[in-house]
Amino acid sequence: MAFNLDRFKFDAQGLIPAIIQDSRTNEVLMLAYMNKEALAKTLTSGQTWFYSRSRQRLWHKGETSGNIQEVDEVYFDCDADALLIKVRQHGAACHEGYKSCFHYRIEPDGRVALVGQPAFDPADVYGDR
Amino acid sequence: MAFNLDRFKFDAQGLIPAIIQDSRTNEVLMLAYMNKEALAKTLTSGQTWFYSRSRQRLWHKGETSGNIQEVDEVYFDCDADALLIKVRQHGAACHEGYKSCFHYRIEPDGRVALVGQPAFDPADVYGDR
Repeated sequence: MAFNLDRFKFDAQGLIPAIIQDSRTNEVLMLAYMNKEALAKTLTSGQTWFYSRSRQRLWHKGETSGNIQEVDEVYFDCDADALLIKVRQHGAACHEGYKSCFHYRIEPDGRVALVGQPAFDPADVYGDR
Repeated sequence: MAFNLDRFKFDAQGLIPAIIQDSRTNEVLMLAYMNKEALAKTLTSGQTWFYSRSRQRLWHKGETSGNIQEVDEVYFDCDADALLIKVRQHGAACHEGYKSCFHYRIEPDGRVALVGQPAFDPADVYGDR
């Protein structure tokens, strides 16, 4: 692929945010960060790789859970400082067992509603951590 | 509203990323950043407010263009460090005149395709800047 990754604006930590969206339903699944190496691996492997800010290392999504993301389309925005990646999600995206990480909704009265049903039990997938 | 904004993880600059999604089509329109004040204004006014990192000030989306965003639903993720806001977009979200800011797609051969049709001419809306 002839694409030049230097056209993107990585932040002071060398990261760019990537919105992950389900190709079929357009549901937003998660937001995570890529460094240049993670983005290159994503583009060449066809599966998502991220940079984990908490663990400070590259992270192949699904490496523990098997819930990989197969990349269908990669978009970037007008400022070249954010990515939108459309994927086919295996299993569920969220480590809490939900399809999407965005399963908390702020209700008009300020309460927080838990939205959706868990697709798996995290203890079965990750063990007791 | 009784919601406590301190439950969110704002970054070292006091910001949290907000994904803006069209309520009707689920199209992702843009990614922008909110500080605590912008998020509070968004929740209480029902329209989106952001913090502009380049201009270093609060920014009421649509203040120049009229292309405001009416908030339908506000979600946050499992780590409480990202927001997903579903809106009814007036006009188009992107300052380049496109409905979505994510109108550049990386093709398998590395070329960049411009996706979608402009909804307005930026020069008509913002003047020559």
